[in-house]
Parts: sequence; structure tokens; C-alpha cells
Amino acid sequence: MDVILKKAFDKYIPLIDQWLDKLLPKDDKPPQAIHRAMRYSVFAGGKRLRPIMAIEAFKWVGGKGAKIYPVACAIELIHTYSLIHDDLPAMDNDDFRRNKPTCHKVFGEANAILAGDALHALAFELLAKTDDAKIIGEVANAIGTEGLVGGQVVDIELEGCDVSEDDVRFIHERKTAALFVASVQAGAMAGIASEKELKSITQFAKRLGLAFQITDDILDIKGDQEELGKDIGSDLEHDKATYPKAVGIEKSQEIAEQLIQKAKKALLPNHSNSLFIALADFVINRTY
Amino acid sequence: MDVILKKAFDKYIPLIDQWLDKLLPKDDKPPQAIHRAMRYSVFAGGKRLRPIMAIEAFKWVGGKGAKIYPVACAIELIHTYSLIHDDLPAMDNDDFRRNKPTCHKVFGEANAILAGDALHALAFELLAKTDDAKIIGEVANAIGTEGLVGGQVVDIELEGCDVSEDDVRFIHERKTAALFVASVQAGAMAGIASEKELKSITQFAKRLGLAFQITDDILDIKGDQEELGKDIGSDLEHDKATYPKAVGIEKSQEIAEQLIQKAKKALLPNHSNSLFIALADFVINRTY
Repeated sequence: MDVILKKAFDKYIPLIDQWLDKLLPKDDKPPQAIHRAMRYSVFAGGKRLRPIMAIEAFKWVGGKGAKIYPVACAIELIHTYSLIHDDLPAMDNDDFRRNKPTCHKVFGEANAILAGDALHALAFELLAKTDDAKIIGEVANAIGTEGLVGGQVVDIELEGCDVSEDDVRFIHERKTAALFVASVQAGAMAGIASEKELKSITQFAKRLGLAFQITDDILDIKGDQEELGKDIGSDLEHDKATYPKAVGIEKSQEIAEQLIQKAKKALLPNHSNSLFIALADFVINRTY
Repeated sequence: MDVILKKAFDKYIPLIDQWLDKLLPKDDKPPQAIHRAMRYSVFAGGKRLRPIMAIEAFKWVGGKGAKIYPVACAIELIHTYSLIHDDLPAMDNDDFRRNKPTCHKVFGEANAILAGDALHALAFELLAKTDDAKIIGEVANAIGTEGLVGGQVVDIELEGCDVSEDDVRFIHERKTAALFVASVQAGAMAGIASEKELKSITQFAKRLGLAFQITDDILDIKGDQEELGKDIGSDLEHDKATYPKAVGIEKSQEIAEQLIQKAKKALLPNHSNSLFIALADFVINRTY
């Protein structure tokens, strides 16, 4: 991994985890079962990419201070909630995530559904602390039927179907890119971005998010199960709509590389772009 | 039903439904399946008690204009989302609600989970239009583990257990009263309430909400299945934590009546209390 990125991960991940620990209800607080389930999934060892992007976007536009952390944590809670619900038997029916049994395998389906719901609500409670309703509106829009949920619905609908590149882009832009975009938008808005900055960072995140999901599709075929921390071949098994299925692995890799180049080009000059560029390089080269 | 209440229902329900229709994505908008599922449950014929309470609280503190309607609709979307998730096979496993098959029976479990998630997100998108982050924070808090979700978790945990009145109150205050409270708080805050007004209407709604859930428990034993629109005896079948189980039907009725008296007493003088009083009388005398 790139040195800049490694330093950023080493610095940010423990900080984000400290904030998450502070902001989540303690697991000995009643009702304990739900707090344990929430914490289990939040602390299952994510890369914290989305909160890092929110913090970096905040700084990129000149934001200062710690007020970005509750926003960044809110984004991570939303990401976690969506993973918990996606893993449910009625959805993708996944038993492992990040090398650990999924939430419903440990706490049962009812608690997993409710843990997702509670993380969803807590995210908005944290976002409300920004006192900026515009940020809340953007995030809410990104995770509804025009974003996260819409992507997941079509992802399930198109299982086992012939799919075009357009179909898969429709899913990936919503299922993955929308929350990448919301992360940088929330960060940039909290840091008082100019319109030009907001447009630039939005373009960057949209392309990065799409490329991220394409490399996810590729890793599901070529990746290493242990390094990846989840079942390999699960897309093939469920005959999911993926880029490799629509256009083949080589073409998928090409599209992801082009998106990464375009993402980098979207970044404004005279800004501290180095971490974003390192993130872009990580997304295209990642093995986990 | 009381004349004041009937007039209010006749006036507000169609208005709220018009707003809901305007604010929900059309069902021919892709992805159609999720929009159809959302609309199916939202328009399944609810009493719209919570949005009416939000609107009434707004007017009660002197609020004017239509800006309360998106807030009131957000509350109803949250209520609907919570019913959809509560009805799921992994939770209460209910097949009927308001005389219609439940969401997952019609659209499948995956779409029902996602329709709930999407209504949850859309509610916050609508609340964000108030430009008042404090309202958003209150509502988010009321539906997380300190409110709605917390109540549902303990409700499931205590199935089949011996329960005390305190146990059941813990559940009912969270599962039902919390959203009644959030409804009037959101309305009152949108109408710029004084602290005294906020305290009064909060006390009213907390007692009303608890009484409402107690009468719900009683109706599950003594009610008419058709009039009620859902299965009777479902609490007994699942050995749920209810007031009749903890203290018997007669004592439950007494407690509900006392709560209704106390609710009325919490209302400030020199305010237009008539609809709230009619609502309180409805809650204690209702047969559906």
C-alpha cells in the first residue's frame, strides 16, 4: 500500500474507532442485546474508507476542528446498517463478512434487522448535531430509492438475468457510488465548500465509487477469500449483475482504470489532493 | 365517535393522504417494485393519528401555513416503516394488517425490508426540509434504541416470559409512546413552541401514547377482528408482554383511564385543547 495512504489509515482508523466507541451506546446499557449487535457489526474491522473520505473532504475545503467526526461516524453507521440488511437471509444470505459470522448469524434475524434500523436512526441523530439540515437532506436522499435502497432492489431483481453494462452501472452507481458521494458531500458541506469544490469532489467520489464496486466484482472472482474476509464466488453463485458478467473481466478492469483516471482529473488544482489520489490508486490495485 | 374528532378526521385524513401522495415517489418510477411496496403500506388505510397530532400541536402553539405537512408525513412514513419491519416473519410474523395482507406477503421479504428502509430514509429527507436540525435530532432519538427500536427489542425478548407492570411500561413507552411524543414535539417545534408548551404537549402525548398501547392490548383480547383490521389474539398466541398479562384486563382498563385523565390535565389552559381532548376520549373508548 502507498505510504501516504498507510499513514492516513494508521492515523484515521483508530481516531474514527474512538469516536464510534464514544458515540455508540455502551453494550451494557439496556436493552443490551441490540447494543451488542450494533457494536459487533460496527467494530467488525472495516476499512473506514467512507468516513476517511468525509474527513478528508472536510479538510480539502479548509474545514477545521473535530466537528467532522460525528458526521464521518454517521456515514460509517449507515454503511454498516446497509451491510447488515444486505447480508440477511431474505437478501444476499451471506454467512461471513470481514472474516466473522454476519450479524444475523450471531444475534438472530430479528436483532439484525433492528440493529440495522437503530444504526440508521442513530446516524441521523449524529448528523442532526451539525445543525445543517442540507447535509441531512443530501445523505437521506443518497440512501433512499434514488441511491442505496434503489441499487439493492435492482441488484436483487436482476439476479439470474441477462444484464447490460448500463444495467450494472445503474446498480453500482446507487448501491455503492451514492454513499461515496454523500460522504464527501457531507464532509465538504460541513467544511463550507464553494460550489466549484462541491462539484469537483462529487465527480471524484462518483467515479471512485463506481470503480470501487467494479474492483469488488473482480475480487469476487479473482480475490483471496481470507484476505478479503468474505466468501469468494458469491456473485457467481447467485448469478448477480456484475461488470465481469456484463462485459468480461478484462474489459471491467479497463473501465475501472479509466474511471480512476477520470476521478483524479476531476480534482481541482491548488488543493491537497495527495490522499485522494492515493485512495484512487488503492481502489484500482486493492486485493481486499 | 365524537363530532369534533370526526370532523377533524374528515378534514385531515384526505389532506394528509394528498400530501403523502405528492411526497412519495410515483409507483411507475423505477425501480417500480420498491415504490409500489412503499405506497401499498402507506396507503393501507391508517388512522393517521400521529400526523394529525403533529399538525394539531403545530397549530396549538400558533404555527401557521402548510410547512407542517411534510413533517407530519415524515412521522407517518416512520410509523409505516416500523409496522412493515415489525410484521416480518423474523419479528411478529403477522400476515394481516388493516384487513390487507402485510407488505412481505405481497412483495416478498427482501422488498418489505427495503421498503421499510426507504421510508425511514425518505422521512429524514422530508424532515430536512424544515431546515431545523433540532427536530430531526428529536425524531431520530425517538426511533432508535431509546425509543421505537428499543421497545421492539424488549417486546421480542420478553415473549413467553413472566412480566411485571414495569416491564410492560418499559416496552410500551418506547414502542408506542415515543413516536406519539416525537409527533407533537416535531409539530410544536416547527410552530415555535415555548418551553412550557413543549413540556405540556410532551406530557400529554406520553400519557396518551401509553394509554393507546394499553387499549391496543385490550382490543387484542376483546376487539372485533374485522373492525380492527388485524388478527385478534395474536398477543396471546405469541405470549407477548401486555398490560392484561401483567395486571389483568380490569386493572389495565383502570390504568388506561387514569392515564387519559392525567393526559388531559397536562394540557395548558388558554390553548385550543378540544381536538386533543377528543383524541384522548377516542383512545380510551376506541373499538378499532
